[in-house]
Amino acid sequence: MSTNTNESHEPTGLAKTPEPPYYAVIFTSKRTAGDNGYGDMAESMVMLASEQPGFLGVESARGSDGVGITVSYWASLEAIRNWKANPLHIAAQNKGRSDWYENYGVRISKVERDYFF
Amino acid sequence: MSTNTNESHEPTGLAKTPEPPYYAVIFTSKRTAGDNGYGDMAESMVMLASEQPGFLGVESARGSDGVGITVSYWASLEAIRNWKANPLHIAAQNKGRSDWYENYGVRISKVERDYFF
Repeated sequence: MSTNTNESHEPTGLAKTPEPPYYAVIFTSKRTAGDNGYGDMAESMVMLASEQPGFLGVESARGSDGVGITVSYWASLEAIRNWKANPLHIAAQNKGRSDWYENYGVRISKVERDYFF
Repeated sequence: MSTNTNESHEPTGLAKTPEPPYYAVIFTSKRTAGDNGYGDMAESMVMLASEQPGFLGVESARGSDGVGITVSYWASLEAIRNWKANPLHIAAQNKGRSDWYENYGVRISKVERDYFF
């Protein structure tokens, strides 16, 4: 688990995922103005996610326009379902809708092929 | 085509994709220092991509640490292959490896489910 946590914070910004197939959750969001506790929660959610069974890594970027994309990688759909149903994560999801995000999209996808430079 | 182009520049930052299944190309990269013509090329590549058959939309974010994620959405694997083989896009890919990116990863995935807030 600690290995995955470290890998997800590679200075390159790239997650070290295994050979496909594996799953990607593409989370695209537009933030509201102000922090309102978002930064701390985002950090602790990445930590918590990285401790879940089936977590493979995470990549994240947010621009100055408030649009952000976080892609988390998982070994199975079951691992994704379990993470979605995690009580601490559910609390964060609720806060996300009430306070942090103007809108967001979640896409569950199966990675079939990858290559790296 | 112009509809897709407009949709990919929604102020929300979210692409308006159709019902799944469709495909997502997750492009994660770490930029080198300096612009070196990157900004103009990135913009023209988004324009060009949006004119390709099977293009469904694009989402993009890059943080101050130089890590960026661009997710483009496509109707089929064939559409993705054609875009990868586009001569102007190939020129940009070569320039990307020589000048603009310290490293990058490309993941081809099939979106099976999505939801939005």
